[in-house]
Amino acid sequence: LLSVILFGIVKQEIVGQIEILASGLSEVLPAGGLELKVKKALEAGRPLRVKLGVDPTAPDLHLGHAVPLRKLRQFQDLGHRAILIIGDFTAMVGDPSGRSVTRPSLSLDQVKANADTYIDQAFKVLDNDPDRLEIRYNSEWLSVLDFVQVLRLTARFTVAGLLVREDFMKRYKGEQSIGLHEFLYPVMQAYDSVEIEADVELGGTDQTFNLLAGRELQEKLGLEPQIALTLPLLEGTDGLKKMSKSYDNHIGLTFAPGDMFGKVMSVPDEAPDRPRFSLILKYYQLGLGRLPQEIADIARQLETGALDPRDAKEELAWRVVATYHGKEAADEARADFEARFRTKDRESERALEEKIDVFIEPQADGKFYLPKLLVACGAAASASEGRRLIDQGGVRINGELQTELHSELGDEFQLKVGKRKIFRAHLNPT
Amino acid sequence: LLSVILFGIVKQEIVGQIEILASGLSEVLPAGGLELKVKKALEAGRPLRVKLGVDPTAPDLHLGHAVPLRKLRQFQDLGHRAILIIGDFTAMVGDPSGRSVTRPSLSLDQVKANADTYIDQAFKVLDNDPDRLEIRYNSEWLSVLDFVQVLRLTARFTVAGLLVREDFMKRYKGEQSIGLHEFLYPVMQAYDSVEIEADVELGGTDQTFNLLAGRELQEKLGLEPQIALTLPLLEGTDGLKKMSKSYDNHIGLTFAPGDMFGKVMSVPDEAPDRPRFSLILKYYQLGLGRLPQEIADIARQLETGALDPRDAKEELAWRVVATYHGKEAADEARADFEARFRTKDRESERALEEKIDVFIEPQADGKFYLPKLLVACGAAASASEGRRLIDQGGVRINGELQTELHSELGDEFQLKVGKRKIFRAHLNPT
Repeated sequence: LLSVILFGIVKQEIVGQIEILASGLSEVLPAGGLELKVKKALEAGRPLRVKLGVDPTAPDLHLGHAVPLRKLRQFQDLGHRAILIIGDFTAMVGDPSGRSVTRPSLSLDQVKANADTYIDQAFKVLDNDPDRLEIRYNSEWLSVLDFVQVLRLTARFTVAGLLVREDFMKRYKGEQSIGLHEFLYPVMQAYDSVEIEADVELGGTDQTFNLLAGRELQEKLGLEPQIALTLPLLEGTDGLKKMSKSYDNHIGLTFAPGDMFGKVMSVPDEAPDRPRFSLILKYYQLGLGRLPQEIADIARQLETGALDPRDAKEELAWRVVATYHGKEAADEARADFEARFRTKDRESERALEEKIDVFIEPQADGKFYLPKLLVACGAAASASEGRRLIDQGGVRINGELQTELHSELGDEFQLKVGKRKIFRAHLNPT
Repeated sequence: LLSVILFGIVKQEIVGQIEILASGLSEVLPAGGLELKVKKALEAGRPLRVKLGVDPTAPDLHLGHAVPLRKLRQFQDLGHRAILIIGDFTAMVGDPSGRSVTRPSLSLDQVKANADTYIDQAFKVLDNDPDRLEIRYNSEWLSVLDFVQVLRLTARFTVAGLLVREDFMKRYKGEQSIGLHEFLYPVMQAYDSVEIEADVELGGTDQTFNLLAGRELQEKLGLEPQIALTLPLLEGTDGLKKMSKSYDNHIGLTFAPGDMFGKVMSVPDEAPDRPRFSLILKYYQLGLGRLPQEIADIARQLETGALDPRDAKEELAWRVVATYHGKEAADEARADFEARFRTKDRESERALEEKIDVFIEPQADGKFYLPKLLVACGAAASASEGRRLIDQGGVRINGELQTELHSELGDEFQLKVGKRKIFRAHLNPT
C-alpha cells in the first residue's frame, strides 16, 4: 500500500514538474524525452544534471541571455542540479551558430573578463547552493586533449552531418567561407556533455544542432543520451526583432537601475500579428521565469481589465531591476520613473487642455454639483449622464479622481473627463 | 670573368638537373616551380629539402610504391636532401585520398610494423648517406600538438576548400559518409611540410590536393612555399590497371627473387591504345628511375629491333630483383627463369613437331649438305633457297643455330626452320 501511495505522490510530482519545466519551451528533443528523464530521476531519487553552456564571447549580457538561466533556475527550484559550463576554451573558436561569417578569435584575457561578467550576472538568477550548482570551465577537459584524442572525437562526426546545419549550409551555398575550426565547435560542445554526464541541455533555438550533437556523441560512446530543451528568443524593446545589442533593442544586465526600469517600460503592450499583451507575458515567462499558473493569472487580469498593462509592466520592470540591482534600487527606480512619468503626463495633458469659462452657482455649503459642471463644459449631455461618468470613475479634477457628486472648486482648475477630454476651466470669471 | 664562367657552369648544371628531375613527372605545381627551386638552390649552394611522406598503412609494398622513392633518389644523386616522412601519426587516420569509404583505424603496433617494412625497402632504393637522407616520424611533432594548436591549424583551412577535392566531393554527393577526422588528414600532411621546411614534395597524382595543402599552409604561415611534383601511377602486370594488391597485378617488394623476376617478365610488351614497348620503358623510368638518356637509348634500340623486348625485360627484371635482393639473387633468378623458359620452349616445340622420314646421302666425310636436307623436308623449294635460309640464321638443329652448310646428323634430330616449321626427322630409316 505504502509503495502505491508513494508511487501516487511521485506520479503527481512528475506531472507537476513537467508542467513547470515544459512551460515556455520552444522544443523538446526527442519529443516526450522530458517526461522520461524527470520520471527516471524522481523514481531513482537522484537529481537531473542540467547543462547550460555559455560562451563568454560578448561582454554585454542582456535580458535575452537570462532566458535559459531562468529555465535552469526552475530546474534548481525543483531539486535538480544546474551545471553551468563556461566555454572559456570554445570561446576561442566562437560558436558559429547562426553566424554568416567566421567570428574573430578572442584572447584568453578577453575570454576571462567576459566569463567573470557572465558569472556575476548568473549568480543573480541562479540558486548558489553548491548542491544545486556546479560551475565548470570547459578548458578543464578540452585543453588537455591531445591530437590523437581530438582525432578520435572527430571520427564520430561526419562532414555531411555537420554541413546539413542550416547556418553552415547557407554559408557553403552562398560561398561564404567556413573555417574548418568552426566544424570543431559542435564537437567540443558535444564533448562537454560527455564529460559532465548531462541529462538535459538547455539552449536557444539557434543551439538545436549543437545540443543534438551532444546527444549523439553520448550515444555513440555508450552513454545515456541527454535530451535537448530549446528556448525561444526574447524580442527586444522594439517588440519585433530578437533582443540584440546590434539592433539597439536590448536591456543590458549591467544597465543602471533607472535605465533598466525605463527600458522595460518601453516594451510595447502590443505588437503586430500577436495576441494583445503577449509580449508582456513573454517577458514574465522568459525574462523572469515566472511559473505557468502566475502567467495565466496575469493574462486573465489583463484581459478583463482588472490589471492595467502599465501596472503589469511596472511590476515587471521592478522585478527585473530587483534581480540585477536589488529591491531598494528597484523601489527607487520605480519612484523616479513614476515621478518623471507624472510630470510628463501633466505636461502632455496641458498641451491638450481646452480653455473654457464656466458659469455655475455654488450650493449653500460653497460646494458645486459636479454633474452640472460636466453639462456646463459640454462633457455630458445631461446631469444624469454626468452622474454616470462620475460613478464610472471617469472624472478627475486637478488629477484627483472624483467619487462624490459634490466638490469644492477653485477659481481655476483642470477637469479631465475620460482619457481625452481635458479642460482648463475658469470659474465664473468676471 | 670567373663569375661569368661560374654562372655558366651553374646555368648548365640547372639545365641538366631540370632534365633529369622533370623526367617522368605527371605534373609540376606551380608550373615552372621546379626551375626556380633548382636555380635558387644551386645559386645559394644549398641542397633542396625534398619531402616524401609515406603512410605505413599497408604491409604489402609493391613496385608502384617505389616510383616516388626512385624520384627521390634522383634528387639525392644530384646532391639534394631527401626527407622521408614516416606517417606513423597520420596512419592512424589513414589517407582518404582516392578512397570511396573511410579507412579502418590502425593500431600503433600495426603502424610500427608496417613502418619498419617500409624503411627496409626504402633503404634499398635510397642513398643512405646521412647528409642525403633524413628519416622522420610525424608523430614527433603531431602527437605533441594540443587542442588549441589543432584549432589554430584548422582555422587556416576552409570546409569548402576541402570539399572541392574530387574524392571528397564524390563521396559527399554520393551520400557516402566522410568522417570529420578525414578532413584533418590534409591538415596534418600540410603541417609536416611546415615542420620540416620542405622545398619540394613528391607524391602520386592522387596526392595533388594534399601536396598543395602543404604549399598553402606554408604560405599562410609566412614560409617559402614548397612546390609539388606528382608522379604517374605505374600499371600492374596486366598492363592495364594501376598496380595494386587488390587487382592482383602487383610486384611485391618482398616477393621471392624468382617470383619477382617472373612477374616482371609477365608485363606485356604491348597494351591497347599505347605506343609499343611503352610499358617496358615506363617500368625502366618509374620502377627503376633510369635517366632520360638511357630511356631514349632503350626506346631506339627496341624500335630498330637491335634489342629484343624479351631481352629488355630480362634486364629490367634482373635490375628489379638486384635492387631488392642483391645481384647474386638476381643472377640466380635469371638463370632459373631462362632454364625454365628453355624447357618450356622445348616442350611447346615438341608439341608442334611434324614427324617425317628423310632420305638423303651423306658426303664422303660423313657430313650432310644442309640445303638438300631442307629441300628434302619441304622447308625450301630449292637448294639455293635452303642456303639463303641458313645464311639468314633461320635454321636450327637440336636447338643449335646452323651457320655452316654442312653438318653431321644423327638418326633422329629436330630441325627448326624459321619460328614455325619444326620437324622431328628420322634419317634414312630402314
